[in-house]
Amino acid sequence: MLVARAVKEALGASSMIRKMFEEGAELKKKYGAENVFDFSIGNPDLEPPPAFHRTLLRLVTEDAAGSHGYMPNAGYPEVREALALKVSREQGVEIDGRHIVMSAGAAGALNVIFKAVLNPDDEVIVSKPYFMEYGPYIDNHRGKLVEVSAAPDFDLDIDGIRRALNEKTAAVLVNSPHNPTGRVYPQKTISALAEVLTRHGRDTGRYPYLVADEPYRELVYDGAVTPPILSVYPHSIVAASYSKNLSLPGERIGYIAVGPRNDDKDVLINALVYTTRILGYVNAPALMQRCVAELTEVKANVDVYAARRAAFKKTLEGAGIEYVNPEGAFYIFCRVPGGDDDSGFTAALKKHLILGVPGSSFGAPGWVRFAYCVNENMIRASAAAFIAVRAQWQAMSM
Amino acid sequence: MLVARAVKEALGASSMIRKMFEEGAELKKKYGAENVFDFSIGNPDLEPPPAFHRTLLRLVTEDAAGSHGYMPNAGYPEVREALALKVSREQGVEIDGRHIVMSAGAAGALNVIFKAVLNPDDEVIVSKPYFMEYGPYIDNHRGKLVEVSAAPDFDLDIDGIRRALNEKTAAVLVNSPHNPTGRVYPQKTISALAEVLTRHGRDTGRYPYLVADEPYRELVYDGAVTPPILSVYPHSIVAASYSKNLSLPGERIGYIAVGPRNDDKDVLINALVYTTRILGYVNAPALMQRCVAELTEVKANVDVYAARRAAFKKTLEGAGIEYVNPEGAFYIFCRVPGGDDDSGFTAALKKHLILGVPGSSFGAPGWVRFAYCVNENMIRASAAAFIAVRAQWQAMSM
Repeated sequence: MLVARAVKEALGASSMIRKMFEEGAELKKKYGAENVFDFSIGNPDLEPPPAFHRTLLRLVTEDAAGSHGYMPNAGYPEVREALALKVSREQGVEIDGRHIVMSAGAAGALNVIFKAVLNPDDEVIVSKPYFMEYGPYIDNHRGKLVEVSAAPDFDLDIDGIRRALNEKTAAVLVNSPHNPTGRVYPQKTISALAEVLTRHGRDTGRYPYLVADEPYRELVYDGAVTPPILSVYPHSIVAASYSKNLSLPGERIGYIAVGPRNDDKDVLINALVYTTRILGYVNAPALMQRCVAELTEVKANVDVYAARRAAFKKTLEGAGIEYVNPEGAFYIFCRVPGGDDDSGFTAALKKHLILGVPGSSFGAPGWVRFAYCVNENMIRASAAAFIAVRAQWQAMSM
Repeated sequence: MLVARAVKEALGASSMIRKMFEEGAELKKKYGAENVFDFSIGNPDLEPPPAFHRTLLRLVTEDAAGSHGYMPNAGYPEVREALALKVSREQGVEIDGRHIVMSAGAAGALNVIFKAVLNPDDEVIVSKPYFMEYGPYIDNHRGKLVEVSAAPDFDLDIDGIRRALNEKTAAVLVNSPHNPTGRVYPQKTISALAEVLTRHGRDTGRYPYLVADEPYRELVYDGAVTPPILSVYPHSIVAASYSKNLSLPGERIGYIAVGPRNDDKDVLINALVYTTRILGYVNAPALMQRCVAELTEVKANVDVYAARRAAFKKTLEGAGIEYVNPEGAFYIFCRVPGGDDDSGFTAALKKHLILGVPGSSFGAPGWVRFAYCVNENMIRASAAAFIAVRAQWQAMSM
């Protein structure tokens, strides 16, 4: 019993993904990094915006007394106030600083939220496909992830969610813009979900939380808007992050926003502050808190991603590979041509030095995810390789 | 079922401590912060050393590409190598970067460790009195905290620990220098503990981990040295932090060091990296990682704390209050004069605007903890108030 049984099992299961990354590293070593089309990881390659650097430099130069010391576990009051204004605008509500709890990114936020609200064996409904880490995040706090398959167009299947609701349902977790499909759920979908949850709450006395994982909120295309959550359903909580829009994934900075119409929201907020403390976060990193509070008007560089998206779509179209049109985030989800063998197709891609993630990793066999948070030239340069794989794959399938 | 039952109960229990803090804030409002002798919180008032500021400013000015992006979950390889050299010196072992996993302070490190090694209902032995957050840290990961009372001089009771060992024992958690008593366990105590654990492992086939919580390692007085752990017992893990020695508690930066002679240490390290990821930490904050890697030679300003310690001892002696001589950390643990009523004595102190924490909060009724990470003048100025309380308390007790 060297390590926990559950962890040992998980290490075995995740070794496939590690193997994939290791094989990618091997390829780069062998053929040169510039010759490998690595679309596997959602790690933004853009630098943080100049305003971030200016603000950080100013704060560090000022070196205010106590600026690396403890602050209240929920974060600096003035930071929480600044973010409350931003969230109020985005979510169509009026909240103040009390409704914000600073977190170590969205991953930290989700763990803090689940620890605060889940009783043992409580259920969290998630639309499949989904980001594979949700399973451990929920299991950490003794909850159960309940999968509901998305609609064929990857919108939420509201009727499926309705059927999955029961007295154990503590929360429904939604992620929009969506990893891995790039879908942005329409406002009417969120409204329909709110209606179903409200009816369930009225019938059973237990209103499930609507938890929105929103690291990609600002990354939307063609004028799309990520619909608000807090204004639509009272029992809602947002997990947000600066990892993607400000390209700060290494700094672990984000926040939780609690809807103003939650019942007894003070207890909920106290619980979130308490679980921030006891999970060992204690607080979000001090310097980054003060930094992001000054950058609420800074927008992600969406144009760059939009250009890459266009290049990727063109590349796929050139090779005759079907995809879901991404409305947000920086992923493009493609159908395996003429079959469901996503690991076979991923292997075939790899032979042409293209790296993607099999849909099975998200619960969607028959699909492959490409991340386009990479240089546009790399996307263009991959076109010939995509065509070659496609031709070869077709021949093999026949 | 608004929040998890366990969290709701914990919020109720911790409301006493919150009440204490709130009352302190009230007192400061009423009488002026400068007139309240607040010895309640272990929040270092010293600024980080000038070398920290210089390094941070240089790193931020350089603004290296990708410096706020993802790195491996365990931390930057070069940071891990730098810390491995430091830990090798401190712990009398030869480890390399693979043995280091960067963490969000010691609190983050302990959660990551317990998640990695505890099966449900596994036990962790802790010497009482202890830092009150250990309970939740262990419970988070389905373990059970088993208390073993310290020896009368607050050294570990090795025989008591031996009796508490059983087939469920996953770990023994030690904290030296110790909160709340300031004890530094003698080398011979650690050796005796290692011997008991080794014998237990040999007899049962399960070697408990020796987990050392070492945020105060560098804060020792009178030439004391915090004894090493990694060189003494193979199955050992250190949780370390820069919160106290570099006064960076708000930045959440620390690390885990794994002993080089752990059986199958690669599995253990992989488990720690995995739990860092799934608990939502993902990685320790990027900028602070790079900062502390350059400061391995910078020492805590122990002289300042030593002078405060001397002033506090003199103050207590002047009032005829007994205390445990602190060998490390910045706490002084005092016996309630002529009785066990620590909450009564704390209340009496408060009437004279002195704030301390009742020993009951650490499992030691009859004691009060004062933190001397405050201005030395405040300590001197409190002397008259201590004498007044002592006189009044004696009169009351008779």
